[in-house]
This record gives sequence, C-alpha cells and structure tokens, in this order.
Amino acid sequence: MAELYFGGDYNPEQWSPAVWAEDMALMRQAGVNLVTVGVFSWSSLEPEPGRYEFGWLDRVLDLLAGNGIRVNLATPTASPPPWFSLAHPEALPVTADGVRLLHGSRDTYCVCSPAYREAAVGIARTLGERYGSHPALEMWHVHNEYGTTCYCDQVSVSFRRWLEDRYGGLAALNEAWTTAFWSQGYSAWEQVFPPRRTQYLANPAQVLDFRRFFSDELLTAYREQKAVLRSLSPGIPITTNFVFGSWVPVDHWRWAREVDLVAIDHYPEGAGIEAEQQTAFGADLARSWAGGGSWLLMEQAAGSLSDGGRMHAKEPGRMTRHSVSHIARGSRGSLFFQWRASRGGSERFHTAMVPHAGPDSRAFREITALGEALPRLAEADEGAVDAEVAILWDAESWWATDGPGLPSPEIDYLAAVRAAHRQLWSLGVSADFAHPTGDLSRYRAVIVPSLYLVSDEAAAAINRYAEGGGQLLVTSLSGIADATSQIRLGGYPGAFRDVLGLRVEEFLPVDSVDLDTGDRGTGWSERLRLEGAEALARYQGGPLDGLPAITRHHNAWYVSTWLDDPSYKSLVDKVIRAAGITPPALPEGVEVITRSSGKTRWRFILNHTSHPVALPGNGVDLLTGETFGDEFTVPAGAWAVLRD
Amino acid sequence: MAELYFGGDYNPEQWSPAVWAEDMALMRQAGVNLVTVGVFSWSSLEPEPGRYEFGWLDRVLDLLAGNGIRVNLATPTASPPPWFSLAHPEALPVTADGVRLLHGSRDTYCVCSPAYREAAVGIARTLGERYGSHPALEMWHVHNEYGTTCYCDQVSVSFRRWLEDRYGGLAALNEAWTTAFWSQGYSAWEQVFPPRRTQYLANPAQVLDFRRFFSDELLTAYREQKAVLRSLSPGIPITTNFVFGSWVPVDHWRWAREVDLVAIDHYPEGAGIEAEQQTAFGADLARSWAGGGSWLLMEQAAGSLSDGGRMHAKEPGRMTRHSVSHIARGSRGSLFFQWRASRGGSERFHTAMVPHAGPDSRAFREITALGEALPRLAEADEGAVDAEVAILWDAESWWATDGPGLPSPEIDYLAAVRAAHRQLWSLGVSADFAHPTGDLSRYRAVIVPSLYLVSDEAAAAINRYAEGGGQLLVTSLSGIADATSQIRLGGYPGAFRDVLGLRVEEFLPVDSVDLDTGDRGTGWSERLRLEGAEALARYQGGPLDGLPAITRHHNAWYVSTWLDDPSYKSLVDKVIRAAGITPPALPEGVEVITRSSGKTRWRFILNHTSHPVALPGNGVDLLTGETFGDEFTVPAGAWAVLRD
Amino acid sequence: MAELYFGGDYNPEQWSPAVWAEDMALMRQAGVNLVTVGVFSWSSLEPEPGRYEFGWLDRVLDLLAGNGIRVNLATPTASPPPWFSLAHPEALPVTADGVRLLHGSRDTYCVCSPAYREAAVGIARTLGERYGSHPALEMWHVHNEYGTTCYCDQVSVSFRRWLEDRYGGLAALNEAWTTAFWSQGYSAWEQVFPPRRTQYLANPAQVLDFRRFFSDELLTAYREQKAVLRSLSPGIPITTNFVFGSWVPVDHWRWAREVDLVAIDHYPEGAGIEAEQQTAFGADLARSWAGGGSWLLMEQAAGSLSDGGRMHAKEPGRMTRHSVSHIARGSRGSLFFQWRASRGGSERFHTAMVPHAGPDSRAFREITALGEALPRLAEADEGAVDAEVAILWDAESWWATDGPGLPSPEIDYLAAVRAAHRQLWSLGVSADFAHPTGDLSRYRAVIVPSLYLVSDEAAAAINRYAEGGGQLLVTSLSGIADATSQIRLGGYPGAFRDVLGLRVEEFLPVDSVDLDTGDRGTGWSERLRLEGAEALARYQGGPLDGLPAITRHHNAWYVSTWLDDPSYKSLVDKVIRAAGITPPALPEGVEVITRSSGKTRWRFILNHTSHPVALPGNGVDLLTGETFGDEFTVPAGAWAVLRD
Repeated sequence: MAELYFGGDYNPEQWSPAVWAEDMALMRQAGVNLVTVGVFSWSSLEPEPGRYEFGWLDRVLDLLAGNGIRVNLATPTASPPPWFSLAHPEALPVTADGVRLLHGSRDTYCVCSPAYREAAVGIARTLGERYGSHPALEMWHVHNEYGTTCYCDQVSVSFRRWLEDRYGGLAALNEAWTTAFWSQGYSAWEQVFPPRRTQYLANPAQVLDFRRFFSDELLTAYREQKAVLRSLSPGIPITTNFVFGSWVPVDHWRWAREVDLVAIDHYPEGAGIEAEQQTAFGADLARSWAGGGSWLLMEQAAGSLSDGGRMHAKEPGRMTRHSVSHIARGSRGSLFFQWRASRGGSERFHTAMVPHAGPDSRAFREITALGEALPRLAEADEGAVDAEVAILWDAESWWATDGPGLPSPEIDYLAAVRAAHRQLWSLGVSADFAHPTGDLSRYRAVIVPSLYLVSDEAAAAINRYAEGGGQLLVTSLSGIADATSQIRLGGYPGAFRDVLGLRVEEFLPVDSVDLDTGDRGTGWSERLRLEGAEALARYQGGPLDGLPAITRHHNAWYVSTWLDDPSYKSLVDKVIRAAGITPPALPEGVEVITRSSGKTRWRFILNHTSHPVALPGNGVDLLTGETFGDEFTVPAGAWAVLRD
Repeated sequence: MAELYFGGDYNPEQWSPAVWAEDMALMRQAGVNLVTVGVFSWSSLEPEPGRYEFGWLDRVLDLLAGNGIRVNLATPTASPPPWFSLAHPEALPVTADGVRLLHGSRDTYCVCSPAYREAAVGIARTLGERYGSHPALEMWHVHNEYGTTCYCDQVSVSFRRWLEDRYGGLAALNEAWTTAFWSQGYSAWEQVFPPRRTQYLANPAQVLDFRRFFSDELLTAYREQKAVLRSLSPGIPITTNFVFGSWVPVDHWRWAREVDLVAIDHYPEGAGIEAEQQTAFGADLARSWAGGGSWLLMEQAAGSLSDGGRMHAKEPGRMTRHSVSHIARGSRGSLFFQWRASRGGSERFHTAMVPHAGPDSRAFREITALGEALPRLAEADEGAVDAEVAILWDAESWWATDGPGLPSPEIDYLAAVRAAHRQLWSLGVSADFAHPTGDLSRYRAVIVPSLYLVSDEAAAAINRYAEGGGQLLVTSLSGIADATSQIRLGGYPGAFRDVLGLRVEEFLPVDSVDLDTGDRGTGWSERLRLEGAEALARYQGGPLDGLPAITRHHNAWYVSTWLDDPSYKSLVDKVIRAAGITPPALPEGVEVITRSSGKTRWRFILNHTSHPVALPGNGVDLLTGETFGDEFTVPAGAWAVLRD
Repeated sequence: MAELYFGGDYNPEQWSPAVWAEDMALMRQAGVNLVTVGVFSWSSLEPEPGRYEFGWLDRVLDLLAGNGIRVNLATPTASPPPWFSLAHPEALPVTADGVRLLHGSRDTYCVCSPAYREAAVGIARTLGERYGSHPALEMWHVHNEYGTTCYCDQVSVSFRRWLEDRYGGLAALNEAWTTAFWSQGYSAWEQVFPPRRTQYLANPAQVLDFRRFFSDELLTAYREQKAVLRSLSPGIPITTNFVFGSWVPVDHWRWAREVDLVAIDHYPEGAGIEAEQQTAFGADLARSWAGGGSWLLMEQAAGSLSDGGRMHAKEPGRMTRHSVSHIARGSRGSLFFQWRASRGGSERFHTAMVPHAGPDSRAFREITALGEALPRLAEADEGAVDAEVAILWDAESWWATDGPGLPSPEIDYLAAVRAAHRQLWSLGVSADFAHPTGDLSRYRAVIVPSLYLVSDEAAAAINRYAEGGGQLLVTSLSGIADATSQIRLGGYPGAFRDVLGLRVEEFLPVDSVDLDTGDRGTGWSERLRLEGAEALARYQGGPLDGLPAITRHHNAWYVSTWLDDPSYKSLVDKVIRAAGITPPALPEGVEVITRSSGKTRWRFILNHTSHPVALPGNGVDLLTGETFGDEFTVPAGAWAVLRD
C-alpha cells in the first residue's frame, strides 16, 4: 500500500534558518511527507558563473531528511539567473513582434539557444552529482511547467531542422502548407521562419507546425536533463510538472511517455461549480496521460481560485474536497504551490499552506486536518478508476482550431471537450480521455468532440471502433482536416461521413437555434444532408428549418450544433444508455468516484452542496474506521471514502 | 448589348491538372465567362529569382480559351515570394512601432522600396510580354487591393519628396501643420518623418498628409505597371480592384481616373438588412467613381457575410440578390472570390462558387441558376441609373476625422455617409455620390454629411450649388476645417455659415437628445445661433433647451445632431420633396432600382422579405420573357427585372 | 490683500501680430492679469541649433507689459524641437517594449539623457539671461507636467546609481526585492535594469523602486533648471505645473518642497457631479501639498470635461463654479489652458478662453464675467480653510497597488482615497490631505484609505495619533506591506493590528456583500478575527456569514469591505461625530467652503443644482457689496461669497 504524498513547493532560500526550524515543526504537525525544493534556486545556487553556494541546500536537505520528509528535487532551469541573461543575451526569448524580453520575471530563456541548453544540462549535472544519492531524494523534478515560446533566429534554425525531418524536402512542405495560396512557395530552407508578425492572416499550417515543433523541442531539452540525471541516480523517478492552458505549446500525450510519473499543476479558473468540474477534468486527463496508472498532483493553490484575474478565496472545505477529488481519480497525493506564502515577489499573494497570517489560522487548520486524513485513504490507491466511456483529446486539434481563418471566433476546442466531460460528470459517469489513434475497444462509448484535425490513422481507428459496435458520438467540427490541416473535401466531416451516414454542406454560425425536440443550440449550426442516418432532432425556424440537427446512423451519433447543457446532457444520456451504461442516481452537486480492485470497491464521495446528503449502501468509513449499514450521510461541504 | 461577366478568382496553381479538367466542365455548367487568374501566383511563376515556370499558366490559359472563358489576368505584385523578402529585407513593411513584418501572409512589401518597385514592374513586363496577345486575355488586373502602409526609412524619403512637391518649402509646411503648437517646427527636411509612434497625440495635419501621400504613392506604383502593360498590349483594358475599409489609404476619386474600368471588391459587414444597404452603398459609390458609367464587381463572397468575425452564412437566395443589386446599379457582372474553395491557407473557409462540399450542393446550384439568369438581364445594361440626389463623399474628410484630437471618439465619417445613404435607400430613392468639387448642378438635392474638411474650392462649389437653388442638406461637423485641416474660425461650420444662415458656437457631445418635434438625436449636439435661418426643430431639455437643432435657410438645411433613423428619414423626405422628388411607395424590405435608356425603362426588384410582394405596373419579365399586366408578384426572397 | 490671478497659457507663436493686438484688447476686456508664455516655444525660439529668434517674444512680453499683464514665463523643455531629436536620437524615450518613440507630439525626451539635460539647462539659462529682469516677469514656469518615462540604457545607468544610493549594496537590494523568488538574485550592478517587458509577472519591488527613482530623477532635472533661474533672477518665484493621473511618476509631497508656489493642472474626468467632487479633491490635495498655504490652479479647460474620451461641454456657469471652487480652497486665482483655441495641432479642440467662435460667444462672455468678479473675492484669500479631518495620501501606496500580483484587478488606490474624500464632501466637511509620516495631531479625525505600503516611521506616526485619542478610520488593504513592499506577516493589516484590535486572515474578493446593518459592500471582503475590537457590522450570507465586517477598538475604526456610498457616508458620519464634528445641514448639490481669519469668516457657496437655494446667516455679499439678513438665496447654478 503506497503512501499518499502530502506537501508542496518549499522555497527555504526566501527565509532565514530560524524560519526553517519552524517549518520543520509545522510540516510535521501538518503531516507533510514530500516537498519540492529548488525550482527557482539557480541564482541562489550559482550566484555568479561557476561559483556555487550549496551550503544552504545541503542544510535544508539534511533538515528534511532528519524530519522524515522526502524531497522532490528540482533542476532550476526554468529561470536562469540575471548573470546568465547578461552573458548570453541571445538566449533571451523574442516575441513574434521581435521584442527581446528581459529577465526580471521567470522563464526568460530561449529553449533553442545552445548556450541555454548547455547551461541547463550543466546545472542538472551538478545537482545530480551532488544530491543524486542523498537519502532524502524521492524524485527529480526537471524544470518547471515547460512552455516558453520564442521566435528568434536560433529558433528559426531549429524549426527548419524539424521541418526537414518531417517533410524531407521543400516540395512536401509547400504541398502540406498549401503555399500556392498567397504566393508563399519556398525555394530554399532559409526562407522559412517561425510565424512572426506578418501583414495579415498567417498560414495556419505553418502556425500548427510551429506548435508541434515547439512541443518536440522542449521535450528534447527535457530528455537531455533526464539522461544526465538518470545516469547519476539510477532508480530515482524523474518527471516534470505539466501545466495546462492554451498558451502551453506541449502535447502531453507525447510527453507522458517520457516521464516516470505523470505530474500536473492544476489551477482551475472560475469560482463556481466549474472549479469542481475542472478539477475532475484535469485529474481524468492526468490519469489518462498516465495510461490509467497513478500520477501526481504536483501543484494546486491552497486557498484560491483564479476568477477573471480576481483571486477567489476557496470556501472552507473546498481545498480539501479538491484534493480528495484528485486522489479519487488516481493522484498519489496532494501537493501545493507553495508551503509558505512569500513575503515578496510577484506571487506573494499566491495562497499557500502556511498563509501570511501564520499557522494560527483557519487555512492552516484545514491543511493540518487534510494531512491527518490522507494516510487513511491510502488503501484505495490499489483500486483502479472504473471508466467505460472515453472522450478523445488531441492537442493538435486544439492548436489547429486556435489558428487563423476559422469560420467563427467562438470555436473553442477546449470548451467543446470540457462540455462533453461536464455532461458525463453531471451524470455521475467516470470518463477516460483517449488519444485519437489509441485503442478504444475497451470502452462502451466514445465521444469525439470537435476533433477538427484527424490523421488518416486516427480516422481509421475511430471508424474501426464504430464498426466494432461501440457507441460513437461525434460533435460538430470533427474530422474536417487531415494531418496537414488541409480540408477533407467532398462535404464535412470528411473523416466520418460514411460512418455517420451524412454530409455537411455548409457551416452556419449563429447566436442560437431551436430544435424541434425542445433542445437548444448556440453559436453554431450546419446544413446537413442525410445519407443513411436518421434525424433525431431537426432545426426549427431560420434558414435550416426542418433540416436535421442531431442524427443517428446505427451506433454512430452526430450533433451539428453546440447544445446547451440540459440538451447535451440528455443526448449523452441516450448514447451511454445505448451502450448499456445506466448513470447512477445522485443528488445534484454530489460527486462519487468509484475505484475497485478485485472484489473491493471504494467510493469517494464529495458533497459540494451546503446541506447534508445521504447515499445508500453499507461498508466502512475510512476516515473513522466505523462500519455503517443501509445509508451513509455526508455533511454539507464534506467528503468521505467508503469501502463497500 | 454587352455581355454580363460571371465568374471569379481562379487559382489553378493550388490544384492538380485533374481538377482543372473538372473546373472547365463546372465553369461551363455554371455559365462562367470570365475568371481572374494569377493574383497570388508570383512564387508559382518565379519560384526562384529569374527562374520562371510558365508552363502551368500557359496550359491553364489555353484550357480557358478552349472553353470560351475569358481571362482577367493579374500581376501578382501584392504578394512577393519569400525569396524576394529574403533578398530584400528592406522591402518588408515596417509598422508605426518599428516592427518589420515578415512574409508568411500576403502584402508583405513596402511600396516605397526601389527594389520592390523594380521587381513589380519587372514581373508585370514579363507577363505582358508573354500573354499580352493571348486570345483569352480580356483585361489586366494589376496587383490586388492596393492598401499596404509602411513607416520605414524609404517611406520617409518618399514622403519628404511628396511634401516638398505639395508645399514648396518648409515654411509652408510649418504653417500648414501648425508646428508652432508643441514645438514641432521643422528646420530641415530630414527632420520630417512618417507619423511613427510618438509620446502622445500625433499632429493631425501630419497624419492626414501621410494618408494623402500614401494614396498617391500607391497610385504611382499602379501607374508604372499600367504603362508597361499598355505598351505591351494596347487596347486591353487595365484596372485594379478597389477595396473599401478604413484601413485603406486610397482616395478612390483620384484612382478612378487611372483605371479603364472601375472595379471593386465588396464584403459587407453585418448579417442583417445592413448587408443589403451596404451592397447598395458600395455599388452606388462604384458607379459614381466610374462617372455614372459601368463598372465591375470584381469580388464578393459567394456564401458568407462577415459579422463581427463570424462568417454568417448567406441565406438561400441572398447571394443572388446581392449580385443583382450590384448589376442593377451598373456593375457589368458579378464576380466572386473565388471559384473553388481552397483546401489550405488562411482563407480556406472563405466561401466560394464551388464549396468544399463540391458541386452537388445547394450553394453551387444557386451559382448555376444565377449564371443561367444573367444573360437575360444584359439588355438593361444600356440603361442609366436614374439618380436625382447626390451625397458628397470625400476620403480626406474620412481620414481627417479618423485622426487624433477630435471632440468625441464617436465621430464616424463613414457612419455619417452611410446614414445619409440609408435614408434614401429606405425611401426608395436612388443616389449618386459626388466629389466635393464636382459639378452638382444636375442634382435636385445634395446631402453633405459630416464633410469635416472642405477646401476653398469645394466650399465655393457647394455654396454655388445652393445659390443656384438646389436643396442642400448639411449635417453636423461639416465645413469645420480647410484643406490643411486647420479650423475655419469665427464659428462652425466655417465654410457654410452664410449659406446656412447660422453659427455654431460650441460642440456638445451627448448620449442622446430630444427635439421638440418628437425627433431624437444621439451622440452629438451643438449650440447654434441663427443668423437668418429658421428653426425647424429645437432641443428639448438639457443645456440647449429651446435652442435650434434643425434649421432651414431658404433651400439650405442644417441638422446639428445625429438623428436616429426615423427622424433622419423624415428630414430627408422633407428635403427631397422640397426638391420636387416624390419617393415611391414601396413595401418595407423591397428594393427597386430603375434604369432607363430613351423610352425604355427597366425595374430591378429585390424582395428581401420572407413573403411575396406584388408591385403595380405592366411589362415584360426578363427572366421568363413573359408579359404581365397590372401587377407583378415577386416571391419571398426572390427578384425580378422588368422591362416596362 | 493679494490680487487673484486670472488668465491662461498664451501661445502667440501660433498667431500673427494682428491677432496679438486683438489679444491684448480682449485680455483687458476679460480682466486677464497673468499669462503663461513659452511652454512649447523651443522650436520657435531656437529653430536651428544655436540660432535664436527672440524678436517675437521680446515684442510679446513688451506688449503684455504695456497692457499691464504679468507673465508666467516657461522654459520650453517639455518639447525639444525636431532638430534636437535628430541630433540626439539617444535622447528620445524608449518604451518598456524597446520601441524608441519619435518626435511629432510632445514630451519626446529621455530625462536621463545627458544631452537632453545639458540642452534643457542651456535653454533655461538663455531665457533667464534674456528675460530674468523683464518688467512683466511674475514667475518662472519650469517645463510642463513632468512625467515622461523611459526604459533606455541611459535610464539603466541612472537607475542603478539611484539604487546604489538607496541600498548601499546588492545584498540589501536582493533582500528588499525578494530576488530569491524566481531566481532573480543580482550579483553585479550591470545585471539590474528598468522593468522592461519580461516573460511573465514583473517583480513588484523593482517596479515600485523604478517609479520612486523616476520621480526623483525628474525632480533633479527640475532642480537643475531652478538653480540656474534662481541665480539669474533672484526673488522671482519658480514653479512647475503638477499634473495628476496614474501615468505620472511623481511624488508630489517631495516635489512640493522644491517649488516656490504649488501649481496644479486639473482636468476632472466625468461629466456628472463627480467633476465637482474631483475639483474639490484636486484643490484640497494642492492646498495640502502647499502645507495649507496658497497655491495656484495653473490650467483647467474653459469649456469641457473629459468623459471617456468625449469632450463633455461644461454647462453654462460650470466653468465659473469650478474656478470659484478652486479659489475657495486656496488657489490664488484661476488660469486656463489656453487663452485662444488653436487652429491646428493635436489640441485644436481643447476648449479655450477665446473659442473658435470668437469673442462674440456665450463662452467668452462667461469668461469676462468671471474676470470681472474675481477682484471682489480677493479679500477672502486672507482666510485659511478650516479643516479638522485629514485623509492620508501616499504616492508610493498608489504605485505599489498599481503593480503586478495583487489579489484583485479591482484594487484601486485612487478610487479608495476619492471615496473617503467624497463622503466628507458630501457631508459638507472640509478635508486636508496628509502624508503618512506627517503631523496628524491637529486633526480631530484621520482616514487611512487603502494605505497598502506603510514604512515603520509612518506606522509609528499613525499609531501615535490613535494613541493620542484621535479618531482613526482605517480601510481595507492598509498596512499590508513595509517600505520595501514586503508583506508584514502574522495577519493583515500588519502595521495596524494592535491599534485596531483585530487580525485579518484572508482576503475574499467578491462581487458584493451584505452586512447585518443593511449596509452593503462591493468587490472586497476579509476574514477578520477580533482581538479586542468590537463588531459594528457583520457579514450576512456567504462564507463570512456572521463574521465582523466593520469594527471599532476605542477610537480606532476598521472597515474590511468597499462600502457603497450611502453605507460609507454613514460610517464616516459616525466617526467624525465621535470626533466632535457635526456636519452642516446642506441641501444636496450645494457646496459651502469656509475660510476664516481672526474673527472674519467667508463662506463660498456653490449651487450645483438647477434650482435656487436659500442658506441661513447674515453678512455681506462680496459680489454685489450688499448686506443681507436672515438668509441668502443663490440662484440655480450660481455661486456667492459671503462675508459673515
């Protein structure tokens, strides 16, 4: 039975040794067993080129070891020191506008700069040599939230090399990028650049390939550090913390293969129930990236949710429920950024485990209570999350629909995937995410939300799934383009016309549309022609009056508008019932995640409402160890884990 | 009887020869008789400096000729190839912020770059030499939508030369630009620059002159190509496609004199009836630029309207009605961008004559039906549009009111002119546009909407018109400045005080104002003192309570607020009735444009409503050839052309 | 009895000598006695390097002297001529993005450029030598609205020097800036830069110090000119016109010590009653900067208020009431930008004393009437404004809360101070502003609105005030940080926990909150723990339900949410009544400012309403000289000054 990790980023270099002593006592009080150290310590470890100051870190690691706290040791390469920028101005990132950024924040590096790459591997090696055998070392945390883009001349060189690998020659690139449009034909590699600022709309294929390239280039940089650390401390797991956001040029499916433990940072946006939905979404993604195995929530904020720039304070109990939600979905624990709120710096108001107010505070008491509870849940880590439905997730479709020249600015891939997940969450049905070319055969139903870009291989995999009898729900804007991002001609959705038994002739972005079933769509509609499918709902009013809106072709379903939540939930309910899945009957605002191993079943229950809820069943309450029969009541805002 | 053109931009370089064959068949099926070829073909024609590939174009032109389709052959100078940018980085445009843009889109050139100018004339000459006598050649299409601005050092040199021509010396420039304000006096030409980014508000006279200069400089570049093509293919008409938008630094009145056929691209903004109003507006402008003669709609989108970034799909029939609306107003046909929707590139979702769905589609069937109908309308091209009212239109007033330091950010010249045109459109009265110094004597009424900048010559022409007895309606913010953009002192509107019999002492921007007539204004009001005029309406409430808002001085009318549509329509109705014009009684949403030649009269009827409308009269329906008596019924969303 | 100044900026270089003659006649007619000359005359005075043209200015000064009009002579250093920029491109300012701005506006200089500094002192010396003994010279007006920022390399050098002075060494800087966060430790001075554009959030301490530095650097530049002028014309007062706005990097408390007469430019934003409130706010600030002594309104707009970019025309009488409001609060007169509205230039629509319409206008008649009235008010200048309440004002707290990483984007220091002042204004109670380290002992009550950054010295001064028995009202977000901008730990508001008898554990930004008193807050709330204080109001509903919102600890009050105006007014009323102040009973929209000297008391009454108001009392109406008993009636929109 694996222990669950509890702790967070620990930045002792911001504090005096007197504070370190208090930290140890408070960590023990809170039940902390893992801290991430050194993420932004480069300038503290190497204040001048080649002059190292390891004394403080030696003492801190020894202190932690002495207090039984394990260390997730970071390489500090996400933030080179000012002296590095000054010595290597060409290693500072450049915007698409040509502005060379300056240090004074973090992430001021160009990953394609040879000087940076050499220095990054160098500091990783130095740390590996010094601490690779330290008794406190639990795992390596390479870098932080890989994701910094650059458009400089060094990037041009690397981009061209990547393109040459991908396309072989310029003829293939010209074809894939449709450079015949707007006279963009390239006749020499040095004519090819990152998509810097240009006069008008950029080439969408160039923009997409640049994002693919950047993900790969960052991954290469990660692998260089991993190789060094592996050789210096074999057996110690190595990972990096994934972060999620449209600015992140990283394809997590590809990255997940390269880490020993998938780790994510998760900062939901929004103050309402969407924070709980996003927590579930992020955790399900992480588990899926980890191939269903365990993973780790590496960062979350202890006390706040980002809400349009405002820091919305988490209501009492909410931090704990979010932590349990992650653990229920496979996280091996709950870590926070950061242990102690900083006195200065840009993130001094980032809420922490120990707030500015100190340990005598509501916030720290909730942390301590969570730390106390976690060990009792560890047994459930043996169970696997039961998921019979998969949602396809694809970074490339996201990037492609984030590019220029789409028919509506409201097209939002992430929103489309979230909406699919939200209906399942709201029905109480656990979902995995799957890669478009992944093996879908073990799922009873698969949802394909707005999978704009579909390679031939992915198209084959998805069609094969439907041919095998699985319930397939495809939503609008799927299957539009091939791997080069060129349109699949002959009627949308080119990749899925046959399996869906229909053809889309035109896109009609709209404010909203009514369907004859009483359902309602927003933002989008399509002129659809049935070629075998039956209409489950038709448009009512407007230019599409009487034409099909939702269709079914045997076990392949299609929805051509962006349904509102009640309509979408009702459709998803139909699809999963057709797949033989009966959603549980749960009170609204109550979340239940089931884990099972052999005959043992654990239920994680989260009561997000402000009233107590009773759920049927009998078993043992892991928190109290008490047995109960018939039903179990979870107080308002509370949670429980039951062994049935 | 001239044939009406039907077709669009044809970009065969994006497709394989197999597709070309299908194109020929579909073009014949659709009745296409003119295609624009080569607009963005530079990198396909000259993939490397000096190495030409004409084979594909030879074959395409021969194919077209063989299928009886005429060619509007473009010079590809709006989009130099990447190799050109790399060889001449100084020819890439620079923003006012100093950012040098890169290729990767289109229009990445600085028109003041000697290298660019030489290359542009060079490729035009090469095309002229090769195809100047090709049997398919119908006309030359120079460049595309001239309008790219630049602020680089080469532009500085050209701008100074232009200023020297205009002002003779710096003393005159200093006077005209009021450089005594804010210590901007220039003592040497090299101190003068384009209006690059500066600390605070720019000098409005400098900004205005820069726009004038850029229009002229672009025109010079056009004329250089025209001269070469003329010499190589005498007798072939030469034109360039005008585009309309506030970003376009071009004075179309001046340009219209330099083209053999005025041609416009027209992409209305807005999904509602404003698209029909804008269609009429653009077509009336084009006809006016063409001096009342025929002109050509060179581009429109087949299937969509831009609506705040969203591509609003044109409802069935709408593409056809827009085409007929243009033809009714003098266009010699209807062309589209583009023939076949691209598979890739930034405009792959730009709707086309052949959509992604292919020819078996509603969209292509509507195209085909239009192609079939057009030849039957050709006889009406002999008729002239009957317009007895003129609206003044002036690019310089637009530019001047788009500059810094105006009393309200809501001042919008284009909106003011559109509003005047919209009232006439809504009254069913055809309008011409006229240049401020043009001959107005043939009009019964003239509207002068927000003609901010008025040269002495224009002021004299307009005053002369009123003195001659024509009904003159002037709206607020007219006659404020002289040709240098300096204020005409002594009370606004300096150029028209005497003829209007009044004096404006103060501007009072507001949210809205009520008039004692029940009319209503928004955004603007003025403190007005009568000096001969009578008040037709007075302000009610607020600081202007009881003071005049709308006035009349004999045949000269003035309105000092921005009337809402019902109020404005009622005022325009009064003015034109005073001019002896009786607006026709038309059902709302029905548009009738009359053309006449001798005793023959053609009525173009567009029914924009969703119900059939019956109009009185008898004659011949050109579409069916049938004769009718008493009244004629146009089905919902349909159209007709009747010879009375 | 001092004469009150009346006049404005006079820019004769924009006009011909014929206009000068008319100017003199109109100035005499209007009662003008002081004009500011030469603010933007550099290019007129020195059109080429070293070639001076003083003839026109000689003539103008002589003309003014001959007409009995005094001169406020400006050094033109806010706008170097184009020739200067061309000769010294390194003296042009650079944005944080690295864009070097160009001349063509005004203020295109970098104050850290040695070439600029030398030229500025040079032109000041030249003017001092020529006009230092001119009979018309009343005072020197150095520069204009100091406030232009720059991020160039010269600025880096000066910034480092300033930091070295402040911190002594890099160790102290690293500590104060918390550079251990995000690996920003500096190991050499040349690594330190202005806060140029960086990858993500900037360091807030760096941003704050940069603003402090820039204020000091601009002040040094001012002092250089002052020293030269003082030596050349001893006895002549020297000042510069302060301007107010968040873009202005100037700490007026420090600047006020360096001017012989505090002078402000004041352009209220907003068209409603807030313009009157802002007028009072600006005038009270100016008087406070002047240490309670007299000061001067150097610029206001004669006819318009800025309202979201729109120029809202001042209603008849409003210009006069604003002028009197300033004078009532200690201004030695009322000056305008500018005398005569310009014909061209960026500010041609800036309303002026003589409008475009000329002197035969409502606007000029109001100016003339004001000029006639002013001399009759001069006797009141002997009286001091009676203020028993102070509001703390601190540029550093403004800058600190304008920086990165705050918990809510709605935090707005200026709004918080305005809100405090507005309640007092609305209660009819005059207020001073005080510096946080100033002597507060003479006030009965002190309000501390959102004083985020509090040095130890300021904390001691404020706590001492409360200990001395003064009523102290502290509002949320006060006392959070120390002078380095580091958080004061242990619970907010660190600097004031003891005196307030409470501790804030968490910030909870919200839309709005209700209190159990019926009061209402917006935007902000806090989790508050009483440690001695009593709760005057508690939160109702939400996560803070039942917890304290407004507290009192003896004479120290705290409010933890942003109260709406009625709630805030009621709280302030309680606090001042506890201080023994009884607000006068005034009709809404009527403003009364009292000045007293010995036994004489003057009441300035401003009736901002549209109906007459009667106020009790007896005395003499200074405007008419008439004596009245019992009550005095002020007509709608009018004003009066009464000697009681």
